[in-house]
Amino acid sequence: MSASTGRTIGIDVGGTKCLGVALDRDGHVVAEDRRPTPRGPGSLPKLIDTLAELADELGPFDEIGVGVPGLVTHEGVLRAAPNLDGVADFDVAGLLGQRVGQRVHVDNDATCAAVSEWLYGAGKGASDMVLVTLGTGIGGGLVMSGKLQRGKHGFAGEYGHIVVDPDGPPCPCGRRGCWERYASGSGLARLAREAAVGRRVNRVLDLAGGDPESVRGEMVMQAAREGDADALRVIDDFGRWVALGLVNLTNALDPEMFVLGGGLAAGSDLYLGPIQYWFKELIYQPDLRPMPEVAFAHWNERAGAVGAALLHSVHDS
Amino acid sequence: MSASTGRTIGIDVGGTKCLGVALDRDGHVVAEDRRPTPRGPGSLPKLIDTLAELADELGPFDEIGVGVPGLVTHEGVLRAAPNLDGVADFDVAGLLGQRVGQRVHVDNDATCAAVSEWLYGAGKGASDMVLVTLGTGIGGGLVMSGKLQRGKHGFAGEYGHIVVDPDGPPCPCGRRGCWERYASGSGLARLAREAAVGRRVNRVLDLAGGDPESVRGEMVMQAAREGDADALRVIDDFGRWVALGLVNLTNALDPEMFVLGGGLAAGSDLYLGPIQYWFKELIYQPDLRPMPEVAFAHWNERAGAVGAALLHSVHDS
Repeated sequence: MSASTGRTIGIDVGGTKCLGVALDRDGHVVAEDRRPTPRGPGSLPKLIDTLAELADELGPFDEIGVGVPGLVTHEGVLRAAPNLDGVADFDVAGLLGQRVGQRVHVDNDATCAAVSEWLYGAGKGASDMVLVTLGTGIGGGLVMSGKLQRGKHGFAGEYGHIVVDPDGPPCPCGRRGCWERYASGSGLARLAREAAVGRRVNRVLDLAGGDPESVRGEMVMQAAREGDADALRVIDDFGRWVALGLVNLTNALDPEMFVLGGGLAAGSDLYLGPIQYWFKELIYQPDLRPMPEVAFAHWNERAGAVGAALLHSVHDS
Repeated sequence: MSASTGRTIGIDVGGTKCLGVALDRDGHVVAEDRRPTPRGPGSLPKLIDTLAELADELGPFDEIGVGVPGLVTHEGVLRAAPNLDGVADFDVAGLLGQRVGQRVHVDNDATCAAVSEWLYGAGKGASDMVLVTLGTGIGGGLVMSGKLQRGKHGFAGEYGHIVVDPDGPPCPCGRRGCWERYASGSGLARLAREAAVGRRVNRVLDLAGGDPESVRGEMVMQAAREGDADALRVIDDFGRWVALGLVNLTNALDPEMFVLGGGLAAGSDLYLGPIQYWFKELIYQPDLRPMPEVAFAHWNERAGAVGAALLHSVHDS
């Protein structure tokens, strides 16, 4: 074995870019690089090339990990990934391991985010933590009894597909009314579009050039920051849906804290209040139980990459 | 310390009766006794008397545990219990501990059922098991990574109050559309009553003496066993709601198996088929992931008492 470099590498594979970081022994980011995620037919071998290039760029290293969107087995095989082209049983750990000549730790990207927040972020020291990423969709990770919990096959934490209304809007997963149809970035936009069609959010509609179909979550955020009452009502509705899902998870898992990450964490000042209000409204016996803390992610867009670099310390532990 | 008796005592406090068992070293039930659960104003001190009498009756013993319905803290305090009169911060472990002169292990009754099924029942040897009791309501317990998971405060496993339709029927917990409004014994009766009002289940209505309000879950079961097509449709609908909740739990927890207990486990031959059919319809990517096994509880009505007797071996482990 070669001499220790004290450096670990983590790469987060996103729908548009691959973000790589190098960490020192104390969990500080000492280098960073990014490449576009290869897309289209035949892109999977190119993805392995991209990951190997990033590892080479950021190395030498002692340990390496990769976060990918989708269902990842304990062996590091990407079983299914709705946002990557042509993935079915894609052996990321095996293929990249051959290229870099050592074991590669692979896990779901939101699980990686949970690891970074738990070890060096907003959830540091928590024994029972639920991470929820509020992005285009909803991902999640789980710590219980002071241990990362991945489930029997590695697929735990897919909170976004908990059905909260079987007659709700269709979800790309094939069902209806999944939580992420309401409480994600695309959920916020949908809530705003529905309000816009009813002409109840004029300022948001202005920002979208008058076309309800062009309404995006950021426009609701902007109008709400300007104090627009209609936009604030949409934010309140959004906060109620986020809270409903957090209450569901509290009933099942009883965490001490939630860490909310993903793109929407940037608007946390706007909707933390509604989340907390609705959480108390929706939970059973709010006066007889401690409320879990709701915190926002420390690592922002680096959460997945940093967590991937730390997987070696939580896998097989 | 006195000589070991090799005997452990478990008592399950139900809404109508307290069931006590004594186990030998191998987990066999060697004695059993039951008393009515004291009800009405001032019944809580009487409940402690009842538990102490049962312990005395079934003793001498090395260890003792009690299962109670509601939110139980790690210290054995019953924080809230909708089906027991006047409970708020009722220190079962402390009060009974003074009476029997030793530590008393206390946990939620469904958590106790999970322990008995995991250690000596249908889930023996499982590393990741979800127990769901389908009774008047729905309770639950959780094993992950080969460990009983109770949550930060001891309140994990309240799967029955996962909201699956915010506009659904009202629940005694104060919210609407909780899973147990659909997938429990009272849920089955409600589905049948709704069908009966629409005159779609004539045989069931006959069994209820012609009054839709008198329809009970057992009548649906009986008519279905007679081959009545309308009743079988209600059973199919019921199975779909059970499956919807199991899919939600699979997305969150990725268990290797579900163990279904509670009063409705007796009708498992009728609705296991519908559950399995709808589970595959509702889960994301059924062809790319192993389906969790669905088993029915081994211990039936003794599950809570046997699990209570075994709490000493899983608490603080």
